[in-house]
Amino acid sequence: MAEIKFIDKGVCAPMGFTASGVAAHIKASRKTPDLALLKSCVPCVVAGLFTSNKVKAECVKWTKCVVERGVAQAVIANSGNANCCTGAAGYEVAKKMAALAAKSLSISAQDVAVCSTGVIGQALPIEKIENSMEALTKGLSPEGHEEAKRAIMTTDTLPKEVAVEFLVGGKAARIGAMCKGSGMIHINLGTMLCFLTTDVAITREALQKALSDTAKETLNCVSVDGDQSTNDTLLALSNGLAANPIIADTSSEAYKTFAAALKQVLTLLAVRIASDGEGATRLVLCKVRGTKNCDTARALAKSVIKSNLVKAAMFGRDANCGRILCALGYAEADFDPDKTNVRFLSKEGFERFFSDNTFDIYKEDFEKWDAVEVIDKGVGLAFDEEKASKILARAVVLIDVSVGDSDEAGWAFGCDLTYDYVKINGDYRT
Amino acid sequence: MAEIKFIDKGVCAPMGFTASGVAAHIKASRKTPDLALLKSCVPCVVAGLFTSNKVKAECVKWTKCVVERGVAQAVIANSGNANCCTGAAGYEVAKKMAALAAKSLSISAQDVAVCSTGVIGQALPIEKIENSMEALTKGLSPEGHEEAKRAIMTTDTLPKEVAVEFLVGGKAARIGAMCKGSGMIHINLGTMLCFLTTDVAITREALQKALSDTAKETLNCVSVDGDQSTNDTLLALSNGLAANPIIADTSSEAYKTFAAALKQVLTLLAVRIASDGEGATRLVLCKVRGTKNCDTARALAKSVIKSNLVKAAMFGRDANCGRILCALGYAEADFDPDKTNVRFLSKEGFERFFSDNTFDIYKEDFEKWDAVEVIDKGVGLAFDEEKASKILARAVVLIDVSVGDSDEAGWAFGCDLTYDYVKINGDYRT
Repeated sequence: MAEIKFIDKGVCAPMGFTASGVAAHIKASRKTPDLALLKSCVPCVVAGLFTSNKVKAECVKWTKCVVERGVAQAVIANSGNANCCTGAAGYEVAKKMAALAAKSLSISAQDVAVCSTGVIGQALPIEKIENSMEALTKGLSPEGHEEAKRAIMTTDTLPKEVAVEFLVGGKAARIGAMCKGSGMIHINLGTMLCFLTTDVAITREALQKALSDTAKETLNCVSVDGDQSTNDTLLALSNGLAANPIIADTSSEAYKTFAAALKQVLTLLAVRIASDGEGATRLVLCKVRGTKNCDTARALAKSVIKSNLVKAAMFGRDANCGRILCALGYAEADFDPDKTNVRFLSKEGFERFFSDNTFDIYKEDFEKWDAVEVIDKGVGLAFDEEKASKILARAVVLIDVSVGDSDEAGWAFGCDLTYDYVKINGDYRT
Repeated sequence: MAEIKFIDKGVCAPMGFTASGVAAHIKASRKTPDLALLKSCVPCVVAGLFTSNKVKAECVKWTKCVVERGVAQAVIANSGNANCCTGAAGYEVAKKMAALAAKSLSISAQDVAVCSTGVIGQALPIEKIENSMEALTKGLSPEGHEEAKRAIMTTDTLPKEVAVEFLVGGKAARIGAMCKGSGMIHINLGTMLCFLTTDVAITREALQKALSDTAKETLNCVSVDGDQSTNDTLLALSNGLAANPIIADTSSEAYKTFAAALKQVLTLLAVRIASDGEGATRLVLCKVRGTKNCDTARALAKSVIKSNLVKAAMFGRDANCGRILCALGYAEADFDPDKTNVRFLSKEGFERFFSDNTFDIYKEDFEKWDAVEVIDKGVGLAFDEEKASKILARAVVLIDVSVGDSDEAGWAFGCDLTYDYVKINGDYRT
């Protein structure tokens, strides 16, 4: 596999993309940026994944149509208001957002994707967006990812972006990404907005397949609180400026290279979203091995990561093996409790994990981490409580579960449940 | 329908039942009762429901066999240790518990149900039970429900018991019940132990049907934290001493009377368990109306009650309508978001709700409660925040959801998510 190199500039890393962000005063705080624009200098093929919630934000309805047409050149996104449960008037607002951006950029409104995130059930003040349109468009620059990534944040404590460079068909190509997501994060995209840009030349069909397949094992395995949002959107725009031979065959080496780079990007975003879960004090990873297939492994891992009792135990540094086994037991997935082993692992030096681009969970040698075994063949072990507490006190904890001998494995990404989660969500709108 | 009268004495209310509870020092505190015994003077038909978790406690394996045989005369139950993830040695411990009780009561071990609740993954010290057996047996009395209901508590803050009397086939008959459950409570029985006694003469098949049907709309609709335990057990013992004509025909009036009384008992227990959810400061009820059937209504109601974001909003007195609609939207149930109305209701005077036997949710006129409408046909309404906050500050809150015109409805029972939930579960074993 070709080398994948981390680079700077997020969504602006691929050729031809510019971005900007301004404070449109949609957020009550009125000072932080809350309106973002992302533009390619030429039209892009576009692929997307959306919330599976039956209640869909009005902007999602609009942007689904853009993705169905398959072409986009810009994305406009706001935080502070989700434009959801706003009815027909809300749909007109989404449409107007696209029209305003299109007019300002001299492109067609149908090529503008629209995303919103924030409070549900309140009208989005379109006039604030209208008033900010000129500044937003003028601000477009190759450095604008810095403001754009901040403008899409809600309860996130840190902006999230990644970019990678790799060779495909002899040409250097790039994928850039920014995303937001902190609470209401759960399997099936959570309250997540994620924008991917790439200069790789790829067909819409191949792009959609790579996106769907990769999301399944990365962003769809993140759980912060088990809630699934109404606004989740994952968009990928490809403008083809890398000038590689266009990728159409999904069994080709070029496709595999692209998909591997995409997986690297989305895994890192998944880990960062989990790290920055509302109120989180530690990142909790769960790896399940030895299942009959990796879907089963992921289902088991997600059930562990999602359990409030496991999450509270992680907060309390409590090596509560029973809660792990219990959560495995109510997953809708097949395994034999009597063949199940559980270990907790951690390693010093991961305090600022989410800012470390070099960590690759798929290549890490976890056998070198400090470990405490708590379940052996389904039976609770006596273990060194002091050692366990030390392992669980660290910023990154891996719950390592083995349920059999096969090489199949799956991951899920989460965090602990803390007082601050309750505080943040007991007091969100006010 | 015959009148159903609340009476005292819990599981000892039906004729022929005695109970006791002692401190066997299984719990670290060593002072509170943690071992309970329940006995009928004659053998009973027995029905039961058990955890659907793939990981089952060893006592559950034993007691399932007792229920499959269909006859029981006693139940021995302990708190402080769940006898789960304890392997073959744990099964021997469960068997030994039955044998010790049987010997002490001069009955057959196969007629003794065994239940445990508490920490998972640690060996249950059978010698402590053995040492307490004499005191436990000697303590059996018609007043023993007082100690027994306390001995099965874990993180419960209050013991939970109910008893009712009603006429069936011209005879006065009774159902008594005690249960425990506070955390790890979720649809499909949660971490719940529930023991029902009755002197109604009823066949095992009719008893099992009444139990299964009624649990589906009561105990199975309680959610405290979304976790499903390994030890859940709901047992019903009927000794027939009321001498009514035996109930065998499940379409008979006598059966309907019995089932109605059972529903009253289990609804009240469901409400009490939800009220006493770990860390809870308020009881949150959700009623969904207007669905195509009541299974759909219950699925929607459970999804709302289970949502961490809804629960945190209830703690924060935040009339966050978006989270309600969002939780409805990811339920696996059919409804039209554009026809959905949501109100929050409460009423003064329910501070000690769980001790009020006279409250009947099925007969209450909720139109007399204070209400604030927050969603109308899928669209968020502007509402009086001060009034909403006042309504949500009360100890019992109803989330009233209407999704259509039909008369079908379903309930779910829950509580808010608080700092104390996190505290209790971050620090459970220590």
